[in-house]
Parts: sequence; structure tokens; C-alpha cells
Amino acid sequence: MTAPSDERLARAALSRLGEPGDLRLCHLAAELGPQRLLAALAEDRPRDDGLRDDVAERLRHLDPAAELARAARQGIRFVVPGDEEWPDGLDDLAGAGALHERGGVPVGLWVRGPLRLDEIAPGLAVVGSRASTTYGDRVAADVAAEASLAGVTVVSGAAFGIDAAAHQGALGARRPTVAVLACGVDKVYPAAHRALLDDVVRTGAVVSEAAPGCAPQRVRFLARNRVIAALARGTVVVEAAARSGALNTATWASALGRVVAGVPGPVTSGSSAGVHERIRNGSMTLVTSGADVLELVGSAGEHLVEPPRAPTTRRDRLTARQRQLLDAVPVSTGVPADSVARVAGVGVLEAASLLRRLETIGLVERDEDGWRLGRAEPA
Amino acid sequence: MTAPSDERLARAALSRLGEPGDLRLCHLAAELGPQRLLAALAEDRPRDDGLRDDVAERLRHLDPAAELARAARQGIRFVVPGDEEWPDGLDDLAGAGALHERGGVPVGLWVRGPLRLDEIAPGLAVVGSRASTTYGDRVAADVAAEASLAGVTVVSGAAFGIDAAAHQGALGARRPTVAVLACGVDKVYPAAHRALLDDVVRTGAVVSEAAPGCAPQRVRFLARNRVIAALARGTVVVEAAARSGALNTATWASALGRVVAGVPGPVTSGSSAGVHERIRNGSMTLVTSGADVLELVGSAGEHLVEPPRAPTTRRDRLTARQRQLLDAVPVSTGVPADSVARVAGVGVLEAASLLRRLETIGLVERDEDGWRLGRAEPA
Repeated sequence: MTAPSDERLARAALSRLGEPGDLRLCHLAAELGPQRLLAALAEDRPRDDGLRDDVAERLRHLDPAAELARAARQGIRFVVPGDEEWPDGLDDLAGAGALHERGGVPVGLWVRGPLRLDEIAPGLAVVGSRASTTYGDRVAADVAAEASLAGVTVVSGAAFGIDAAAHQGALGARRPTVAVLACGVDKVYPAAHRALLDDVVRTGAVVSEAAPGCAPQRVRFLARNRVIAALARGTVVVEAAARSGALNTATWASALGRVVAGVPGPVTSGSSAGVHERIRNGSMTLVTSGADVLELVGSAGEHLVEPPRAPTTRRDRLTARQRQLLDAVPVSTGVPADSVARVAGVGVLEAASLLRRLETIGLVERDEDGWRLGRAEPA
Repeated sequence: MTAPSDERLARAALSRLGEPGDLRLCHLAAELGPQRLLAALAEDRPRDDGLRDDVAERLRHLDPAAELARAARQGIRFVVPGDEEWPDGLDDLAGAGALHERGGVPVGLWVRGPLRLDEIAPGLAVVGSRASTTYGDRVAADVAAEASLAGVTVVSGAAFGIDAAAHQGALGARRPTVAVLACGVDKVYPAAHRALLDDVVRTGAVVSEAAPGCAPQRVRFLARNRVIAALARGTVVVEAAARSGALNTATWASALGRVVAGVPGPVTSGSSAGVHERIRNGSMTLVTSGADVLELVGSAGEHLVEPPRAPTTRRDRLTARQRQLLDAVPVSTGVPADSVARVAGVGVLEAASLLRRLETIGLVERDEDGWRLGRAEPA
């Protein structure tokens, strides 16, 4: 293995120094370059933006070369801008603004697992409530499986509920999936998802902006959500109550100009309230299936969805004249053929002949009063 | 009771002669006036449009004066354009085009019940699948009750399923409701809804474009749907499979420039597929409650809906500084106060003091390793 470049070392140092999505750090790294930023921070003088004070303690313990070597021994690589593996989509974060004072292009991402980040595209983020319902879990798994089978990689956050269902849907379809964590990729959070993360890392990737060893903190979840959104061509939200963290991911996807979709659910529980509100106000597109989602995230014409149609009915196979007559047959009590003829505006002889034909295919039947509809639906 | 005018007699005759929503008849009645149209049809010569042939048989049996008198004895009135009771909204059908070759302003409406048609406005049509689910029935009844209590009259078609649930929701709120039938208002269809229609007619109105005695035919359902849409300021669809008749009512509401809304449901059954498709393609607005619907059909500012919000949390009541610190506390394993201070960018002494304050309100707690979040949600 060749020695890491100075830039990679500087980025590893900045990743350890700063918090994920720290706007000052991300923007200065992009503006000055990582090495100059690191040198500036190492100077022992205060800065107007307070960044120096925040990182002062950590600066004393930096050893990025040792850290990268230790990570490599644990099967963890540090992917940075300029690497072949660095996905273009992440650079869109430079222009996507800030949410909760988090934003910007990560200085690098720590990755475990065989899936290369540049192989994720087109990715689909499937996120939602941790307090999901059985309905939500099922839909998330279905959407994830269908997307995976169509060659779209599912990206999520490995949280309880919808995230887990999405990863499991992809894994169940025997396709790789990507889990973006708020803690270091060597940590397991939530602890109950050790087996899930083991499964993810076997064929896919576990990714974090936070350096190995970092614990999950609230700010890190918020920063993490922007990475999920940026790694995917579109984000679909399955179940999100008002103010759910999943809506934060959707907001990032919007800010990045990506597709944002939501799956509706029963209005009688609050579990889809956040999704319904965003569909209602036009910031999410309603989707009901993996096929709908694929149509949205696919390149034009790549995935085409048929508008839902009822199955072809016997009525569809009738001639126009037969339909005209059928429309005039009463639903409940029968009437004589001449009455049907009059309503339909058809001669009596023709009507009688058409009625007999409709009777043979079960669309009309005769009772003591005359002709009425068979079991076909009236409207 | 004064004798009916010649125009009313002519309209009653045309109502008996023609089919509901017969485009030729509705348009000619508007163009020539009902008396001249009736005289033209009585002339014994064929017409290019075939209308004469269709009505020839019925012409021989016309006695509109006797018919109106018989209707009056049954508590049925015939409301025509120009009557004080005639609602303006019906006249919009003149410019709303045709669907399934049905359209135009009715020559008159047959009405039973104390509610005057001009007292319906602002009406709300609540329609949907006859093969409804328990979920759909519940939502339809809730929306209908809430609209009724806000002074919006619920209009529907008295069919099985959602229609019945909508009427029952209004009746349960002790408010009048309007049932528009495809058969004569003296008939009961479906037969199982005799009690429901009795309840509707006690305080509200049962309405039909078809003359008394007419049976329910498929064309009459299609024509009926446009009357439901025209009597209401908006139409909300609760559960409609692809190609459901309820979507026909929604299409009429769109053609009339009225509000069209749909309630989403689980995507795992087909019962809301038609609604989802129309929300997705932008021809329906997603609504989740009576309050949402009222906001749409109300005059501007009359009914304002609050966007859904999670209940205020303890976190909302924190100072900015407390929140900044809280965001830096790990979710799972505790960390020392100086680590929290560093992540938060806050001095160690201040951090320790803030942490103790957060501990008293249960937002953070201490374990053997240090500070971590209480039961509050991490993201």
C-alpha cells in the first residue's frame, strides 16, 4: 500500500477535528484546500469564527497517518474528493445550503464494505419513521426490493423501523445496500442492528462522515441525513409523522434538486401525517410502489409505469352498439325489450337480438318482468 | 296550489320523454326553450339527430299536468330553472362539456324532502367506492360529519359503501344531507337503503333528474354523477379503485371548475388506487381530514387549517445554548462532560452546568461512562 498523500492526511485530520457537516469547516476546506485549512487551525491564535476554539483540544491528539493505518486494518477506507471512488453527487452539497447549521461537502467519508461509492448511482434513499407500522415496514421492504432488482441501490440510515425494513428489502432481493451512519463505521448503532449491519457490509457499504470511534450524537444524525440524500438520485419517505427526522432527509433531497417522493398511508393514524402534508403542499410526489419510484428516479424512458387500470372487463370487449343497449338495461327489476330499446334509442328487433347476445355472455338476464343486468356493476 | 306554468309543464314532459343528461335534449331545451322543443318533437317528422325516434313512443303517453299533480301528492316537487329554489351551480353544467355522451343542464330536478336546493350551498360531495373498506367508511363518515357541523351540506349518491357512510356521517351529526339518485325519487335503490333514504328525506333532500318511476340504469348513474358534482362546491373522493364511478364524479367536478380532493389510504390494497393516481397526476388535492376539506371548499380565510405539528416537546422549551449542548450528547453510551463540551463548542464549566440543568428535566442522564441522552429521540 502506498503512503497516503498529504491531502488525504489533511482530510483525515480535519475529519477527526471537526463535526460532520460543520459548515465553517466544510466550506473552508473547499475554499482553502484541506492542507492550508489544517495549517491555519494549527496556528496558535484565535479565529473570529470560533472554529479554532472548538478543535483546540482535538488538535493535540492528531495522528492521521496512524489513524488511516488503523482504519485500514479494520477494513475501513477513507474516500475523499478526487478519488476515483468519490461519487459526483456529493459535490452537489457545496451549493445546497444549510439545515440546522449543517451542510457542505464532507471532507471525506469512512467506508466499510465491498461496494464502491461510485457504484451506488443511481441510488434510491428509502427512509422513514423509526416508530413504523407493519404496513410501513412492508411497503418500505417492497419498494426497496423492487428498486434493487431494477439495479437501483437502496441507501438508508440503518435506524429502527423503515430504515431497517428498506435495507432488509434490498438484502432479501440479494442486492447490495448502503447504510449511512451517524456514528463511526466501526460502531454499531442501534446495538440491536449488529446482524443487519454485518449483512449490509458483506455485499454493500457502511458509510459515515464521522471518524471511526465517534458516538452517535443528534447533530451527527442531522448531518448524516444530507449524505443519505446526496448519495441517491431520489429519496422516498415511507411513514413520517410531523417533524420526523425522515422529513429532514427529504428536505435535503429537495435542496439538492433530487427527486422527493412519499408513500401515502391511512389518515387515521399519525404515522404518515408528515408525508401527507408534503404531498399536499407539492414538495413530494405521491408514489405507491417500486414501479412508481423507478419511473421517477430512472432516466427518461428507462422505467415506464403504466397508469393503474382495472382489469379488462367483459364490457370492454363489447361493440359500441352492444354497450349502448347494455347501458339502458335496468339494474334491479327487469323491463320488457321494447322499453330497453326506447331508452337505448335502438329499434325493438335489433334490441331483442342484442339482448339475447348479451344474455349468452352473462351480462344481462331475464326475470318475470323482463330484462335486467347480470351481476355486472351498474356504475 | 296554482296551476303549473306552460314552461313547467313542458319541462316535466321533457323530463319524462328524454334520458337524464341526454345532450341533444338538454342543449335544445336551453337553446329553443322547453315549450318550442316539445312542440318540435310533437311534429310528426323525423329529425337528423334521432331524438324524435327515441322519444316517439313516450310522446303518446304524456300528461305532464297529471304527473306533476301525482308527484305533489307523493310529496315530490319538480324544481326548474327560474324557480327561486333552483341552485345557480347547476347552470354551470351548460359549459362543462360531456362525459360518456351525457351532459348539459337538467330540464328540471325531482325533489323529496324539506331541504331546498338553493340552501345546499356550500355543498360538499363525498363519494367513493361501493366496495369500501372499514377504513374508508370511517374516514368518509368523519369528513362528512365535520363538514356538516361546519355548515357545509354533504351531497352523495346513496350507494353502498362510501356514499352511505357519508350520508350517515352527516345524519349522525344531526345535519341534513342530499342524496342524488339515478332512479326516480319515489324508488328505493339500492333496496337495502330504504331506512337510509327515509332518514335523508326527513331533514334533507332526495333528488333525481330522472322522472318518478324511472328505474336505475347505467346511463342514469353516469348522468347522475354530474348533478352530484354540480350541487357541491367541491368533491372529495374516499377510496376509489381504478375506473371507479366515483372518479367520474371527480371528473365532472373538475370540468365544472370545482374543488376536487382525495383521501389517501394504504397502498397495499387497491381500494385507493384511483385516488392515488389522481393525486399523483395533480388532478386531485390530497386531504386527510374534514378540516383539510373545509379549507379547500371554504371561502378564503373562512376555514383555516393548521399544518400538522408534533406536540411541543421539552426540547422546544430549551434555550438555544441548552439545545446546542443537548445536540452534542451521545445517544447510547455516555461520555465525559469535557467531551460533550468539545463537540458542542462550549466551555467545560458551562457545559457541566448546562448538563446538570438538562438532567433535572430528564433530557440527559448519567451512566458509568458519563453523559448520554435521556429517552428523547435522537433525530
